[in-house]
Amino acid sequence: MVADLPRRLAAEALGTAFLVCTVVGSGIMAETLTADTALALLANTIPTGAILVVIITVFGPISGAHFNPAVSLAFALRGDLAAGEAPAYMAAQIAGGLFGALLAHAMFELPLLQASQTARTGISQWLAEVVATFGLVAVILGGLRAQRAAVPWLVGLYITAAYWFTASTSFANPAVAVARGFTDTFSGIRPMDVPGFVLAQCVGAVLALAAIRWLFAALPAPRG
Amino acid sequence: MVADLPRRLAAEALGTAFLVCTVVGSGIMAETLTADTALALLANTIPTGAILVVIITVFGPISGAHFNPAVSLAFALRGDLAAGEAPAYMAAQIAGGLFGALLAHAMFELPLLQASQTARTGISQWLAEVVATFGLVAVILGGLRAQRAAVPWLVGLYITAAYWFTASTSFANPAVAVARGFTDTFSGIRPMDVPGFVLAQCVGAVLALAAIRWLFAALPAPRG
Amino acid sequence: MVADLPRRLAAEALGTAFLVCTVVGSGIMAETLTADTALALLANTIPTGAILVVIITVFGPISGAHFNPAVSLAFALRGDLAAGEAPAYMAAQIAGGLFGALLAHAMFELPLLQASQTARTGISQWLAEVVATFGLVAVILGGLRAQRAAVPWLVGLYITAAYWFTASTSFANPAVAVARGFTDTFSGIRPMDVPGFVLAQCVGAVLALAAIRWLFAALPAPRG
Amino acid sequence: MVADLPRRLAAEALGTAFLVCTVVGSGIMAETLTADTALALLANTIPTGAILVVIITVFGPISGAHFNPAVSLAFALRGDLAAGEAPAYMAAQIAGGLFGALLAHAMFELPLLQASQTARTGISQWLAEVVATFGLVAVILGGLRAQRAAVPWLVGLYITAAYWFTASTSFANPAVAVARGFTDTFSGIRPMDVPGFVLAQCVGAVLALAAIRWLFAALPAPRG
Repeated sequence: MVADLPRRLAAEALGTAFLVCTVVGSGIMAETLTADTALALLANTIPTGAILVVIITVFGPISGAHFNPAVSLAFALRGDLAAGEAPAYMAAQIAGGLFGALLAHAMFELPLLQASQTARTGISQWLAEVVATFGLVAVILGGLRAQRAAVPWLVGLYITAAYWFTASTSFANPAVAVARGFTDTFSGIRPMDVPGFVLAQCVGAVLALAAIRWLFAALPAPRG
Repeated sequence: MVADLPRRLAAEALGTAFLVCTVVGSGIMAETLTADTALALLANTIPTGAILVVIITVFGPISGAHFNPAVSLAFALRGDLAAGEAPAYMAAQIAGGLFGALLAHAMFELPLLQASQTARTGISQWLAEVVATFGLVAVILGGLRAQRAAVPWLVGLYITAAYWFTASTSFANPAVAVARGFTDTFSGIRPMDVPGFVLAQCVGAVLALAAIRWLFAALPAPRG
Repeated sequence: MVADLPRRLAAEALGTAFLVCTVVGSGIMAETLTADTALALLANTIPTGAILVVIITVFGPISGAHFNPAVSLAFALRGDLAAGEAPAYMAAQIAGGLFGALLAHAMFELPLLQASQTARTGISQWLAEVVATFGLVAVILGGLRAQRAAVPWLVGLYITAAYWFTASTSFANPAVAVARGFTDTFSGIRPMDVPGFVLAQCVGAVLALAAIRWLFAALPAPRG
Repeated sequence: MVADLPRRLAAEALGTAFLVCTVVGSGIMAETLTADTALALLANTIPTGAILVVIITVFGPISGAHFNPAVSLAFALRGDLAAGEAPAYMAAQIAGGLFGALLAHAMFELPLLQASQTARTGISQWLAEVVATFGLVAVILGGLRAQRAAVPWLVGLYITAAYWFTASTSFANPAVAVARGFTDTFSGIRPMDVPGFVLAQCVGAVLALAAIRWLFAALPAPRG
């Protein structure tokens, strides 16, 4: 990462905007076109997995391609992101995510500002978000040690799986969770349920940091 | 690119023919086999994403594998395509695209020459095409800087996502838009609506050129 | 290819058996589980594309991983396969393919020996097979010039697309066509219609050989 | 593999937990959301294939990423896994698998401990498991010879295909079979039917070991 902070923040915002626009937009497209919820979720999953590979590959050299405050938290705790820059990263991610939701609404001729009414709360949902984010951060940190160049693919494939094996459909990203609070469509979540998700995501990220640190302790420094 | 202009134009025409034949043909196959529109769109999406990886990889060494006048426009503005060759590239792409639509009709025993009656117009659709083409050109230009060898995959995956997150199903390609004007099947667009799409696509391409130039300004020259 | 002829023939037979077992078996599984034909075709497409990447990668170093008499024909015409070995390759492919169909029947508790009653004939179907095989052989020969290591993926992705953009669902393989003559399930073809398909496939292969030879004439020798 | 045994066992347990959690969880999610069994199986297939690529890539450098007693058996017979360590590997895989099923139940608010009532037995099912595991082990061992770096992808793609071309949906893994005995959901198998599956899987693994040893005998030592 040789880019200056403004360019890095722009990359984080732009990438997160594409991510949320894909999550929200594909959800709208899917629920418009079918009555089968599994098919709609599949049509939500495949674009999300695909766009993750794309934005992490393209923006990685600029900003590291976090697009996720829980990931930035983990990198900051590892010392890979300056603690003073972490809040700016997170703010850029949240702003980009909100813009992405708004852009999806504009393209689909929906009210730009919405609040979701979809309840997503309770111990099982929070457990699902702990598991989802633990897996995501473990995949990123472990993938950086195991095969750095594969990380964009690993993240896209992991989320493709996690959409289905977690009961929450794996938000695993506080910026995405906040943005999804502001869309009353397929992928929405009630704003009042967002804090529980965010807290669970941070717990999952910190657990993954510890687990990967222990697991990979004996391995030599990462190879390219 | 060491091939001479005739071979490069042939590659552009042949690749665009495969692209449009896939878009149109898979749309016909899908709408013939199911009444679920989301499933039909998925069966339109997956083949299109797949063929893009294939044709960009195979024809890239010959012509650069644009298959898209908006992409050729961006490369010409960057000076990567001789301005004098750009019109020939675009003509080859449009001719190949028309042949691809015609070939799909022939295989599926439909009238060879058709005009679409599917309305695709209005500010939301144009916004969708600006966004879709901005993303496509940003992915290509950014991908060339970030990881050149991944570009065929990035384009295939980006279009897989963009089919779903844009309200227009992401034409993002003037040659494809023109060709789709001449098929009254799943993927068609009324000929009278094509100019609006093409204009929006050119706007998206130019915006992407500027954005990527600024974002990647600090990065060293691209690596292989 | 350093393996001796018996091992190469065994690899061709084993790979073609896996290919046909996947085509036939996934068709049986799909039509058993759903009434939606597009969904059944998708559940036929995805496994076929996936297994192609696998068998071409694994068996490539042994036999070249043709699994297809039309591909062996093209390689023999190029001088990459000894003319005297081509018939043995084709016989191994056909034998392997028949065994694959039989194995699928055994696993699904169907009569081992069957003859298909599905009519697949006529000019449009033959045109579709010419196009399908032209594309397949062009992708293989062009891919070997453009990016040798990507060929397994290019073939898998090409067939994924061709299932949908050709009216015949892209057999594109005489050994597979013969084997599919002997299954009266989703993927079958009447034995009397097989010769027309095989002839069309050979035409497509020869056309592709000529087209790729011309297109890539100016390029330097292939890189790894 | 430079990690010590406890870390390697932890990696085997964690990876197998993710694998089973994906198989069981995506099955639950799918059958909850759709009445179409083919769609449910597709929504079971895609996440399973995806997570396999992820966990084999990430944990490979630590433990070799077997996640499967039949694979550990094959590696032990080849001398690549110390015979004394094989039982520990298998125990870790089974424990991890059981935890994965339990975790899926917890996330989806189902009783943690369940016994499946889905009958999966008979000669055709056993044949299917012999074929499925023969293919899996052949792909792993052959892939290690042909293109080591591709093995995670080959396994993910092979299982994607095998879900559909085998009548048993390809368990191909004794640890996964045991764990699926303890879930009375989409992916379950009656505990009394598990031993037959495990035996068939071991037969398939040993056959593959012999076949690949013969096929690749003439090839030089594997390249990276």
